[in-house]
Amino acid sequence: MASVSDIPDIVIGRLPIYLRALTQLSQQGHEITSSHELGQRLGISSAQIRKDLSHFGEFGKQGTGYQISHLQAQLKQILQVDREWPMVVVGAGDLGRAIAHYGGFVERGFRVVGIFDSDPNKIGTGNANLKVMDPASLKSVIHDQHVKIAVIAVPAQFAQQVCDGLIDAGVHAILNYAPITLTVPDNVHVQYIDPVTDLQRMTYYLESES
Amino acid sequence: MASVSDIPDIVIGRLPIYLRALTQLSQQGHEITSSHELGQRLGISSAQIRKDLSHFGEFGKQGTGYQISHLQAQLKQILQVDREWPMVVVGAGDLGRAIAHYGGFVERGFRVVGIFDSDPNKIGTGNANLKVMDPASLKSVIHDQHVKIAVIAVPAQFAQQVCDGLIDAGVHAILNYAPITLTVPDNVHVQYIDPVTDLQRMTYYLESES
Repeated sequence: MASVSDIPDIVIGRLPIYLRALTQLSQQGHEITSSHELGQRLGISSAQIRKDLSHFGEFGKQGTGYQISHLQAQLKQILQVDREWPMVVVGAGDLGRAIAHYGGFVERGFRVVGIFDSDPNKIGTGNANLKVMDPASLKSVIHDQHVKIAVIAVPAQFAQQVCDGLIDAGVHAILNYAPITLTVPDNVHVQYIDPVTDLQRMTYYLESES
Repeated sequence: MASVSDIPDIVIGRLPIYLRALTQLSQQGHEITSSHELGQRLGISSAQIRKDLSHFGEFGKQGTGYQISHLQAQLKQILQVDREWPMVVVGAGDLGRAIAHYGGFVERGFRVVGIFDSDPNKIGTGNANLKVMDPASLKSVIHDQHVKIAVIAVPAQFAQQVCDGLIDAGVHAILNYAPITLTVPDNVHVQYIDPVTDLQRMTYYLESES
């Protein structure tokens, strides 16, 4: 098996998509799939899928395809989501609360263990097992629960300082919903979610008549 | 200027990031920037930025950099966000409502003109200028307001049928928050937002000790 640094990040980025498709196939009652079938579902060539997976070993037999449950288990192990990662959310606006209460995290490897907001009117609100907390306790929650992952859902102008505080507290991976690019040390990973950049990428292609 | 099909989609995908960084620089009082400064902010090489922009013409003078307001205007025109695109949101759960009420769309080219949900308990709720509507009126809203863009924020098992209905009604670009890959005709654009795939891409790199 190749070491972390050998494999292009773009390949790593496709593995969660493969895993998601396998889970869906499994839920639909399939037990076996092929790079061809996966490719058709995902709009990715079967050759690309086979090449991506070949970085990590042999998962299928020529002519018989992939056993879905086996490939799922392998991908979960490679992505390290065969365990549950605790996660904090900073920002308890509409978006932060929607994230904190999203039901789709747990079955895919993540659990929100804290949501934080500096607005005194928000602190203490929320449901019984996830109340909005004062950012003063952010560092101790991160430390005590061994949190490595945080979600930033604050306005753009506060995002960098929140990010700095999270890294200082021990976070190594950040999912940033604030519409700015963050400055982080090399050993910290950031992924960005900004629906507007996704929309603008599509308007380029649209015919503008009405 | 190159035609649409000449330019790799990955280049198009970076233009909204450049535009966002320029807007931020402008808000911070800057009037001039350089591919070097932009690159530093974005973690992208200055050579890549110059190459990306060169697809669309000459925007800077050697040695004097880019005039921010001019480059902003040009990028907005290229991305066709120098206008306002009406948009519908399907699904009025926590996420759909957070999207519908997000304040960051209008200044960047988008306006939510309708939010839809089939749950009778949700229809009619919301604030005065954006009440949740019955999906029965989706087609007429799309038609009457010349909507080309839709956001899907329904559970995974309903996403494909919602998608089919949107395309049938005239939508050409879909931002999909449901965690499945959609099947669409070639002339329809889809972008995906799934926080879990972004998180799983990062856990690959994390040390798993605690």
